[in-house]
Amino acid sequence: MVFNYPDGRSYLNPTVSKNTHSVAKKQPSQTAAEKKTVAKNSFGNRGMRLEEAINESNRYYLDRRLAVVHKKPTPIQIVNVDYPKRSAAVIKEAYFKEASTTDYNGVYKGFYLDFEAKETKNKASFPFKNFHDHQIRHMEACLDQRGICFVLLWFSSLERCFFLDSRTLIHYWQQQKNSGKKSLPLAVIEKEGIEIPRKIAPRIPYLDAVDRYLKSKEGLFDGQ
Amino acid sequence: MVFNYPDGRSYLNPTVSKNTHSVAKKQPSQTAAEKKTVAKNSFGNRGMRLEEAINESNRYYLDRRLAVVHKKPTPIQIVNVDYPKRSAAVIKEAYFKEASTTDYNGVYKGFYLDFEAKETKNKASFPFKNFHDHQIRHMEACLDQRGICFVLLWFSSLERCFFLDSRTLIHYWQQQKNSGKKSLPLAVIEKEGIEIPRKIAPRIPYLDAVDRYLKSKEGLFDGQ
Repeated sequence: MVFNYPDGRSYLNPTVSKNTHSVAKKQPSQTAAEKKTVAKNSFGNRGMRLEEAINESNRYYLDRRLAVVHKKPTPIQIVNVDYPKRSAAVIKEAYFKEASTTDYNGVYKGFYLDFEAKETKNKASFPFKNFHDHQIRHMEACLDQRGICFVLLWFSSLERCFFLDSRTLIHYWQQQKNSGKKSLPLAVIEKEGIEIPRKIAPRIPYLDAVDRYLKSKEGLFDGQ
Repeated sequence: MVFNYPDGRSYLNPTVSKNTHSVAKKQPSQTAAEKKTVAKNSFGNRGMRLEEAINESNRYYLDRRLAVVHKKPTPIQIVNVDYPKRSAAVIKEAYFKEASTTDYNGVYKGFYLDFEAKETKNKASFPFKNFHDHQIRHMEACLDQRGICFVLLWFSSLERCFFLDSRTLIHYWQQQKNSGKKSLPLAVIEKEGIEIPRKIAPRIPYLDAVDRYLKSKEGLFDGQ
């Protein structure tokens, strides 16, 4: 049996792998690695907390058999591996690779879900630079296949989280290429997106927004 | 423009990342790492070739906008990272983690696809030991959400590839727990699965089998 905290977090610390005991002892340096990844993506430390909140929400949904959504592992290019006798292989040289897709995908009531979570400290708009060309292309390809694609936009200074479907995001993203506008105004997100009020469990109840989105598009996703 | 070989393989070597030039120069040691991963999974060297064939098929489908399916990156526990000035971060210590899901997922005509590819040198049956508890649990959870879940079974000695839906696999997997039978007879796979004749492009045309499977289950996946 798995015990959970009241907010749905699993009692077992998910960052400590059961299979790699030696790693568990070295959490501080792992945290350094994580920080770097975060810094690289320019989300700052809060970015990691956003990821954690989404991972916990995914676990909440999984445990209750409501959806199966996972974060994809960070792609890494392995160069050199050591194979000490009687212990696990140690990767001695490897590099971070750029992901070619979004971070999260899975299945919910027969629907393919695909999303990315992004964060800004801005208070009035969401910078487009958070989205990369390859992510936009991936979303377009998934939409083509009738997947449910969206982004979760977290305004950390406002503590507000929005669901915005990818079709709308791409519409403004393309406009931006012509107009040179560097960000999506909060007013537009408020109008076109769906605000996700934070809860205790799951911390980011994004499936509520997915339900509302599907309802607003009723008929469009039938006959799959 | 992307050029492809006649069999659908991309002209650009996908194992050479454009962003990590130093890595590209060191292919031999990377291959050693890959070999180890393969050995660990006890697929032998051919396992890697099966993975390559599926990755190329996925690329073929993606390029032609027929489906969006990707292999998930190998999950890795990072322990120590170096940040040399003016160059990319180098992971100095990391370990392979066990995946909690199957290897491949994506979207096809509105359907969520989720599968695992396995290989045997056996000629008369497929060993159950190729499937792990957590993979079976993941498939059950995806089936619950009306995903299309299956395995691709490759008999390397026979050069025959089969699509077997996860519901059927799980049925026999559970029987095995009681009966102690250690493998699934080829005769059963021939009867219950769908053989995938290999082609030049895509090398493993698994979507043909998915289409046949969906047709055989018509009505079951409506109303999504």
